[in-house]
Amino acid sequence: MTALVNYQIVLNRRPVGEPTPEDFRMVEQPMPTPGPDEVLLKVLYLSIDPYMRGRMSDAESYATPVPLNGVMVGGTVARVEVSNHPNFQAGDLVLSMSGWQSYAVAHGSHLTKLGNTLPRPSYALGLLGMPGITAYMGLLDIGQPKAGETVVVASASGAVGSMVGQIAKLQGCRVVGIAGGDKKCRYVTEELGFDVCLDHRAPDFAQQLAQACPDGIDVYFENVGGAVFDAVMPLLNPKARIPVCGLISQYNATSLPGGPDRLSLLARTILVKRIRMQGFIVFDDYWHRYGEFFQQMSQWVAEGKVKLLEDCVEGLENAPQALIGLLRGDNFGKVVVQVARDL
Amino acid sequence: MTALVNYQIVLNRRPVGEPTPEDFRMVEQPMPTPGPDEVLLKVLYLSIDPYMRGRMSDAESYATPVPLNGVMVGGTVARVEVSNHPNFQAGDLVLSMSGWQSYAVAHGSHLTKLGNTLPRPSYALGLLGMPGITAYMGLLDIGQPKAGETVVVASASGAVGSMVGQIAKLQGCRVVGIAGGDKKCRYVTEELGFDVCLDHRAPDFAQQLAQACPDGIDVYFENVGGAVFDAVMPLLNPKARIPVCGLISQYNATSLPGGPDRLSLLARTILVKRIRMQGFIVFDDYWHRYGEFFQQMSQWVAEGKVKLLEDCVEGLENAPQALIGLLRGDNFGKVVVQVARDL
Repeated sequence: MTALVNYQIVLNRRPVGEPTPEDFRMVEQPMPTPGPDEVLLKVLYLSIDPYMRGRMSDAESYATPVPLNGVMVGGTVARVEVSNHPNFQAGDLVLSMSGWQSYAVAHGSHLTKLGNTLPRPSYALGLLGMPGITAYMGLLDIGQPKAGETVVVASASGAVGSMVGQIAKLQGCRVVGIAGGDKKCRYVTEELGFDVCLDHRAPDFAQQLAQACPDGIDVYFENVGGAVFDAVMPLLNPKARIPVCGLISQYNATSLPGGPDRLSLLARTILVKRIRMQGFIVFDDYWHRYGEFFQQMSQWVAEGKVKLLEDCVEGLENAPQALIGLLRGDNFGKVVVQVARDL
Repeated sequence: MTALVNYQIVLNRRPVGEPTPEDFRMVEQPMPTPGPDEVLLKVLYLSIDPYMRGRMSDAESYATPVPLNGVMVGGTVARVEVSNHPNFQAGDLVLSMSGWQSYAVAHGSHLTKLGNTLPRPSYALGLLGMPGITAYMGLLDIGQPKAGETVVVASASGAVGSMVGQIAKLQGCRVVGIAGGDKKCRYVTEELGFDVCLDHRAPDFAQQLAQACPDGIDVYFENVGGAVFDAVMPLLNPKARIPVCGLISQYNATSLPGGPDRLSLLARTILVKRIRMQGFIVFDDYWHRYGEFFQQMSQWVAEGKVKLLEDCVEGLENAPQALIGLLRGDNFGKVVVQVARDL
């Protein structure tokens, strides 16, 4: 075996506000060697997701932050190169959490074998992966939409939002998406089948949302926060449900906005409208139900009932820019980095 | 029958901020006459509850406001004087929503017969009435406390708060109450059996709360909002539950407080701690389970496992002051107005 190098992208410093390329650093490491029951993995695809911004900070959150000079975390599709584990052999495709690097060692028990049934291996990072189960469980288990109800979701062309809307349509709901710009909005209605999609950049966005929800909002799948939530709040129906999946508009915020302090207004809205607002973290709360999700979603994929645009970036070195762009809303669909060719 | 007069207290004007005696007006009306299937009721006890402040305003809320010059709403224990309904006869004690007046007419189908098993008829307005079922359902159905968890509730000597804490103790929880002043706090720990009770007026209240909750807070039964919620928020454990029953500290507020705007901070807390925050209105959400509640609570009352101090005010004319005082926290226990003697 030639002396291959493992390229890694590490956290160079903790960002203040929006991350910059200087917050990341590429380093070269010797190839790792798998121990007993471990495998050596070659990373093919790296998933880029909003939660990664949180891991770059050391503020209290739901997960341990990435340490300074530590490899950035991330879900990956990888190929087994060397296996010391009885369940895997060289050539197997697996889902792993190998992070931002070209090779990794993992214990066999931390891997999910992907088989050869996926239309594309990278689907395991989108439709059939973390974004898919996030949308599926957040919407169905917490949001509990009923046919005829109105479901609103932002980042509607993104990985989670596009799935939320499509699953809600399969439940017979009226679905209103929110996205940035005409091109995304057209895609969301014409290709994904949402009833309406509104551009949150429009100066009269709040009025447009009210018009698009003549019967109010029964489920608001919260993944952005900020001005979108402000427009949603007055439209919530009694007994509305708000699964809180993310707050991407807030991730780069360095301080709270100016007053008045509307904390009590939110509490009052929850009270008088008898709203259920519930945060969830798919890794902790729902990963044990991955099998149930995978079965249903695979069927929908096979039947052509759901789809997900992939925004694929070539080369590990472009991962930092891919995350920076995702947090700005520059992406169009699920962002993955192709770290190496499959072949 | 002598020409009796029906005394009523009506809404004279909508209060701005704290209600004043001038917002109410006593009027004399002729005695009402029951029609087919109706009964004439003599009101014995009137329940005074925080929600009444909301009904005095015409801001959007969960219930229709009392119209100007309309009789103030309220739960009552009454005695049937004349019955045109087959299920009732003169002398029966009933639970009704007759409001702030000395006599009323009601359709038989809107009444609950109380029988003679209550230790005191006014219990139907407290322990075994609306405050009791509010505490019971909010805590058990939404809060879902488990043995060993920490439950926090404010207005701990009040009708709902005192029941929440006692029911939580029966579930094996550590219970931290919050009340106004030493006398109430002593009552809450010594008589009601809470583990701790803190005076929210103490300058170091937030620190005291943190010390009283060394393992964090698993269930916060929200009935006050404001500074208590601010002290609770950083102590909430992952997967904490917040039944939102009321926000008494906010009811007299005429504007939102100054910034910063912490709405997004609350949303972020809900997200990263995977909190479930859920508003409920006992009349709409749980009244159909009154029988289940009544059976369990009656048993606890009979076994001496729960108790409720009654703060009884004599005379309908004192009802406005009783409500004004309740909103200020002047009361000590469940506030009822004795409108007429039982005999």
